[in-house]
Amino acid sequence: MRLWPLSNDIKSKQFIKIFKRSDGEYESMIQRVYAGLRKLECGADITIATSKSQVSLIHNQLGCDVSVCVEPCRRDTFPAIVLATAYLHDVKGIAEDEVAVVCPVDPYVESDYFDALEKLGALAAAGGANLVLMGIEPTYPSEKYGYIIPTGREPVSGAEAFKEKPDAETAREYIKNGALWNGGVFAYKLGYVLSKAHELIDFEGYEDLYEKYGELEKISFDYAVVEKESRIQVMRFAGQWKDLGTWNTLTEAMGECFVGPAMLDETCSNVHVVNELDVPIVCMGLKDAVVSASPQGILVSDKERSGYIKPYVEKTDRKVMFAEKSWGDYKVIDVGQDSLTIKVTLKPGQKMNYHSHSRRDEVWTVIHGEGRVVIDGEARLVGVGDVVNMPAGCKHTIEALTELNVIEVQLGKDIDVRDKVKSKGGSDEEA
Amino acid sequence: MRLWPLSNDIKSKQFIKIFKRSDGEYESMIQRVYAGLRKLECGADITIATSKSQVSLIHNQLGCDVSVCVEPCRRDTFPAIVLATAYLHDVKGIAEDEVAVVCPVDPYVESDYFDALEKLGALAAAGGANLVLMGIEPTYPSEKYGYIIPTGREPVSGAEAFKEKPDAETAREYIKNGALWNGGVFAYKLGYVLSKAHELIDFEGYEDLYEKYGELEKISFDYAVVEKESRIQVMRFAGQWKDLGTWNTLTEAMGECFVGPAMLDETCSNVHVVNELDVPIVCMGLKDAVVSASPQGILVSDKERSGYIKPYVEKTDRKVMFAEKSWGDYKVIDVGQDSLTIKVTLKPGQKMNYHSHSRRDEVWTVIHGEGRVVIDGEARLVGVGDVVNMPAGCKHTIEALTELNVIEVQLGKDIDVRDKVKSKGGSDEEA
Repeated sequence: MRLWPLSNDIKSKQFIKIFKRSDGEYESMIQRVYAGLRKLECGADITIATSKSQVSLIHNQLGCDVSVCVEPCRRDTFPAIVLATAYLHDVKGIAEDEVAVVCPVDPYVESDYFDALEKLGALAAAGGANLVLMGIEPTYPSEKYGYIIPTGREPVSGAEAFKEKPDAETAREYIKNGALWNGGVFAYKLGYVLSKAHELIDFEGYEDLYEKYGELEKISFDYAVVEKESRIQVMRFAGQWKDLGTWNTLTEAMGECFVGPAMLDETCSNVHVVNELDVPIVCMGLKDAVVSASPQGILVSDKERSGYIKPYVEKTDRKVMFAEKSWGDYKVIDVGQDSLTIKVTLKPGQKMNYHSHSRRDEVWTVIHGEGRVVIDGEARLVGVGDVVNMPAGCKHTIEALTELNVIEVQLGKDIDVRDKVKSKGGSDEEA
Repeated sequence: MRLWPLSNDIKSKQFIKIFKRSDGEYESMIQRVYAGLRKLECGADITIATSKSQVSLIHNQLGCDVSVCVEPCRRDTFPAIVLATAYLHDVKGIAEDEVAVVCPVDPYVESDYFDALEKLGALAAAGGANLVLMGIEPTYPSEKYGYIIPTGREPVSGAEAFKEKPDAETAREYIKNGALWNGGVFAYKLGYVLSKAHELIDFEGYEDLYEKYGELEKISFDYAVVEKESRIQVMRFAGQWKDLGTWNTLTEAMGECFVGPAMLDETCSNVHVVNELDVPIVCMGLKDAVVSASPQGILVSDKERSGYIKPYVEKTDRKVMFAEKSWGDYKVIDVGQDSLTIKVTLKPGQKMNYHSHSRRDEVWTVIHGEGRVVIDGEARLVGVGDVVNMPAGCKHTIEALTELNVIEVQLGKDIDVRDKVKSKGGSDEEA
């Protein structure tokens, strides 16, 4: 929400495409991290632990063959890491003495970070400790992070204590004495976490744990495991590691001053523009400002002030105005009294689930590409200019034979994304 | 163009709805002036002289029964005033000894201005001069205006000389000596301008003049008439009279700090927002700034800098993204590779011209209201959810029985507003 209007209730900051790749395309934080991990020489096997609501987005941005461990609901980090570890062992068949390295995709990092992850894994494999933590060299006395107090200043040391979110004064003291940020990056052998899990949770294996997931206690991995473990190592990391949680920090990491159609006059200074609309943004005479536009809204803010956006976003209409799905994406282009018009883009070869709506009619007009629709069991090919009528209750799906753009008009009272009934059939295989 | 993105190639500043009426609705400059004139006790008969491209907009904003004298092409002010005067005399049958008062709709004025217009007309009727000019008390030594040097400082005097756009130094000198701005506001008896016209132009009456209009010399009324006339009076006017030609001056005249969906945090100061999009604009920590959004684009500018917008607007895509027509309005909601999707709003009882396109297909989906379409001569009623297909060449029109909203998908290569063929028929009477 703090990166509104680019983030909304279903798209969080990890998915905002804001970083320019060498080929000129833009990528998101999760795409950067995934690409960085895939380049590692050790050929790490990557699994993404995430909540249900993010799976479509992950498939959209990383491809449909990425390995995903889905949390059926939100618990805390201990249940999440146990579930992912059980998934690696029971579903992917990875042995108990193999090493897992856990890293969040939130922080902005560079290539040295991935090398450090590899070292972290090697330390865990060597078996000198049950848990190997990455300790990040602090760049300022943050009040938001947890601190690790290491036993010494050598590259790899033990951990003496863990301190949660101190005030700035205390943080400054910690840092003077060599304390490190706890970034939630650590490595362990699967067997270690599985045995800890069985001590604390009564479960058989992955399937059983998944079933019980909603009943598990909300408890952090730090609290349940890290702070109680004596066989622990801390590896110092001094490279780039930056939380891009606010517009102010996010724009610092942007390579150029704008993404999307924008013009800044020569009297603008320290201005960043991220424009996901098709219309141009013209900026003149601005200082220290961020300007961002999406189908969700438009933000114009002094960079320092941008951290205080939350109460204003809460006052806006929170209806989701754009989303990335596994099959492509959509954006709302008109909100009427009893209608909603959206532009749908399907990637070649992708298709929607076969579904129906109980309280709204829909009309598709194909504006680009070729596809195949199934309407109440009847398949037919569609191309530019073809119109498909789907009254409420009518089961429908569309599959893109080439990249496909469709204008979808939704008609009805109280149109709601949750009015969706999945159906069986409609295609050769289930989407 | 200087008020981009609210103005575009077909909508000029006079039509931007930015002034809050007492009933809470917003009105444009032309609506303000028209309402002011209609309130005059003298019951002035109002005719609007304008170019062809503005007629739809005038009908949209002032109603379809407003009297309009259309210039078939752009000449200068002398031909325009002669044409309008001939229109009043020959078409509307107004006698030669009746008075016409000419006033531009550009400046921002208040009610005392309309009273002054009435006095100007009374002076012309009294016959003490052939021409009665309004001389506006300057508020600063502008380099953009023409100056009238009056023969004295009394409320009504003679004119000694006219000076075009002096430098600021000279303007300051003029003002010290009692000079006034020439705002192009003046009154005369129709017979006077008609006789001047016949001296300079060989024409029979209005119809003949209209036919010849394109061949007339481009010459200003000031140069052709005012500066050569010795029987002239100048009436001083000291009320509000402000050119709102830039964002900086326009926002000064706004009653509130925003129009349209917007939120400004408490750290904003001297910030104005005009938002014609449906999505909210959130402003935080801005100073002396103007923010404006329309389907044409988004402007974020320091107020002083906003006067330098022209070269940036010239670099944007100039395709017209919204327009007001006599029957309602439309806005572009999606631009595809070979498609354009627009939202059309028709006012109750209004209809489009019966027309066809030679190089594009169209699909209408009715999203609100009820109407009647005529497709290649066949009439039928349409309501919410009805879809109408119009391949290239198909003649079509739609009439609104209630307020009507339609999503129109245009499909074809090089879609252009000029691809429009008007047809006969299609309705009981021609639109």
